[in-house]
Amino acid sequence: MVAAYDQLRSEGYIDARRGSGAFVANVPPDHLLSARSIAAKPLHPSKNDRQTDLRPPEHRPLPFSPGAVDQDLFPTQLWSRLLDRAWRRHGCNLLNRSDARGHVPLQHAISEHLKIWRAIDCDAEQIFVTSGSAEGLRLVLSSLLDKPDRVFLEDPGYDTFRRVVADQRHEAVCCPVDGEGLDIAEAERRTPNARAAIVTASRHYPLGVTMSLARRLALLDWAKRTGGWIIEDDYDSEYRYAGRPLATLMSLDETERVIYLGSFSKVLFPTLRLGYVVAPQGAVDLFTTALRSIGSSASMVAQPALTEFIESGAFASHIRRMRRVYGRRLVALRQALDTHCQGLLEPAGTDGGMHIVARLSEKLARDTSDIELSRRAHAAGLIAPAISSHAIEHHDVQGLVLGFAAFQECELANGVRCLASVLTKR
Amino acid sequence: MVAAYDQLRSEGYIDARRGSGAFVANVPPDHLLSARSIAAKPLHPSKNDRQTDLRPPEHRPLPFSPGAVDQDLFPTQLWSRLLDRAWRRHGCNLLNRSDARGHVPLQHAISEHLKIWRAIDCDAEQIFVTSGSAEGLRLVLSSLLDKPDRVFLEDPGYDTFRRVVADQRHEAVCCPVDGEGLDIAEAERRTPNARAAIVTASRHYPLGVTMSLARRLALLDWAKRTGGWIIEDDYDSEYRYAGRPLATLMSLDETERVIYLGSFSKVLFPTLRLGYVVAPQGAVDLFTTALRSIGSSASMVAQPALTEFIESGAFASHIRRMRRVYGRRLVALRQALDTHCQGLLEPAGTDGGMHIVARLSEKLARDTSDIELSRRAHAAGLIAPAISSHAIEHHDVQGLVLGFAAFQECELANGVRCLASVLTKR
Repeated sequence: MVAAYDQLRSEGYIDARRGSGAFVANVPPDHLLSARSIAAKPLHPSKNDRQTDLRPPEHRPLPFSPGAVDQDLFPTQLWSRLLDRAWRRHGCNLLNRSDARGHVPLQHAISEHLKIWRAIDCDAEQIFVTSGSAEGLRLVLSSLLDKPDRVFLEDPGYDTFRRVVADQRHEAVCCPVDGEGLDIAEAERRTPNARAAIVTASRHYPLGVTMSLARRLALLDWAKRTGGWIIEDDYDSEYRYAGRPLATLMSLDETERVIYLGSFSKVLFPTLRLGYVVAPQGAVDLFTTALRSIGSSASMVAQPALTEFIESGAFASHIRRMRRVYGRRLVALRQALDTHCQGLLEPAGTDGGMHIVARLSEKLARDTSDIELSRRAHAAGLIAPAISSHAIEHHDVQGLVLGFAAFQECELANGVRCLASVLTKR
Repeated sequence: MVAAYDQLRSEGYIDARRGSGAFVANVPPDHLLSARSIAAKPLHPSKNDRQTDLRPPEHRPLPFSPGAVDQDLFPTQLWSRLLDRAWRRHGCNLLNRSDARGHVPLQHAISEHLKIWRAIDCDAEQIFVTSGSAEGLRLVLSSLLDKPDRVFLEDPGYDTFRRVVADQRHEAVCCPVDGEGLDIAEAERRTPNARAAIVTASRHYPLGVTMSLARRLALLDWAKRTGGWIIEDDYDSEYRYAGRPLATLMSLDETERVIYLGSFSKVLFPTLRLGYVVAPQGAVDLFTTALRSIGSSASMVAQPALTEFIESGAFASHIRRMRRVYGRRLVALRQALDTHCQGLLEPAGTDGGMHIVARLSEKLARDTSDIELSRRAHAAGLIAPAISSHAIEHHDVQGLVLGFAAFQECELANGVRCLASVLTKR
């Protein structure tokens, strides 16, 4: 401590005076503009204490955290090798931003991935790498709406989007979601002049509903007729356990009114903070200008490694592997719910994603609310968000969101037993 | 191509139909919801072409890019080793977010760094890791201002902040900056009811002015009297080539009205996209709630490596080394300007930072504008932003912003010769 202090003093970085609480008024401005002495307080914690801190705490998400991914099956050895290699080879070229839109090879890799996995035919130039769908939405709204405007949002829906819309002072118009997804005709009847609609067409978040064809065509027609924009959030469609992959609105769109938001949070891991926007060809310049003006939040550190991860085929292998694993976990969770939560929860059918929506039984819903049950589950060490906590106006759907991806089958079974006892406790 | 296609088909991922432009109306919904056949277009570019793309393009910032850092002196080998090691050892614990505020050991490392380098005495709990100062400002405004409000901004000033303020629909009140920095008394006289002031007190961006003691005390007094918030952007104060380090407003503040924004963009590299907010103790809960509600944009990928970089002392060594190098470059740039741009540019004195502000001579300012000269410099392969392009109302300061950090002394001399010929060409 003293040595560090002496070194700093010898380099002219700190003043030798001790105790500095009252020196403001009595010394000339020149002094005041220099940093306060750090000697007044010891530089605790000591080096040894801090060394202990350096190990990341063992962190396991609690069942049934919906956004969590499996921690043991991610190829961390390969990933660390790719990070190391990219930085050893190209490090000096990565330090200064060459293009706000992202690492060019990653743009190419994403556009190839989208062709194969999501049937979206786009050029690399249409891809804008972001730090995730929140930044993506912010970019889209800043680019397309130059003044506060009305934006259709699914209700219930993804809280973060609502927050981004509110942060930019747009008016969030809540649209109910039924078994066919967002009903644009009904939404338009109530609020005729919205400028954008944010939808999770492939699998509604959190309800898991797939938007019907009729609704998709109506939505595309709305955009064409009114000049509105459709912002399609496609957050985990790579995880589909039965049937063919679902088409995206963007691949159906022929009028360049759909903007696609993709993310690596679910298919890789959430702390990666990399996602992307696919802009319609005609909006690329608008998006580029907006992104350059505010700068990108997407770190470059992992972009070259991610590029190699995708191009080498490791990404596709990982998705396929996790799809098998998650598919089994979905079955295990559903079986456990059938066994232990009969008459309490009614799990909705789902053939994809990373969570199940389990509605409260009529009896349970009469006695209590999903928010209360979620609170009690949390007290018992479980994360089971209430559906109605994702809602603004439409609280009629009462149920719990149960993530299964990050948990082994035995953990899911134990979790469900624990949940059942929470639900039956009065 | 055909093999890839066959594999996808065999796995049930794509439909065997070819050509799909007109199939929307004629097939059942079930079909329409499945992905369009990708066979209609070949999967170009071929694998070999893409391999070439994988190498990051050789990227060198053009002189005098103000935000660029030196690309050759960053310890990329050490950095890649730290990345590799952190992920090999702790990878599985890094995938799912444990705390939206950031990697806990990094919070500790930053608070230690601030004690030593910026004389800010804060707990790790007050540190919120962000993807940079734009996200930092967004977090601060979302946490503290619950409705559109007036925000004092320096004019000229940092464009990105203006954009963030505008994006959240606050009213940006432009305050002139003189030789003592932002004049809060004058600002308050014109606009009495602003709720926050964003200032670069240590070194105004872009003018390089250090806020005087009188103005600092007046600003702190304004905050105390009105309940306003001071948002202190301290973007590159580690780079000071003469005298003692400058005190921060936060270290002078005794009423918890100052929020500090720090960044690794200048002291490490801009594409890292890591920065931090230091919240006053009393606002920590408010900030935590806001950050959890919208999620952090800060990637976890580099946070453990950065922690070790700081704790091992490599960060301090890097800053000290770059300070010596940048200090020499500052001298070289000033000498080159004295030699080649006499009577054209009047470089302001500066003892820190990564750029010089060079005002146009009276003669030059009479004949042309800084924006026109910046445009001409760009055409000649130079980046020399016009000061007045950073201004909203106050365009009276005409000059160029010349970054020197990323360029060797000979590059700076060549760049200045080139700039001189741009300035003298009619």
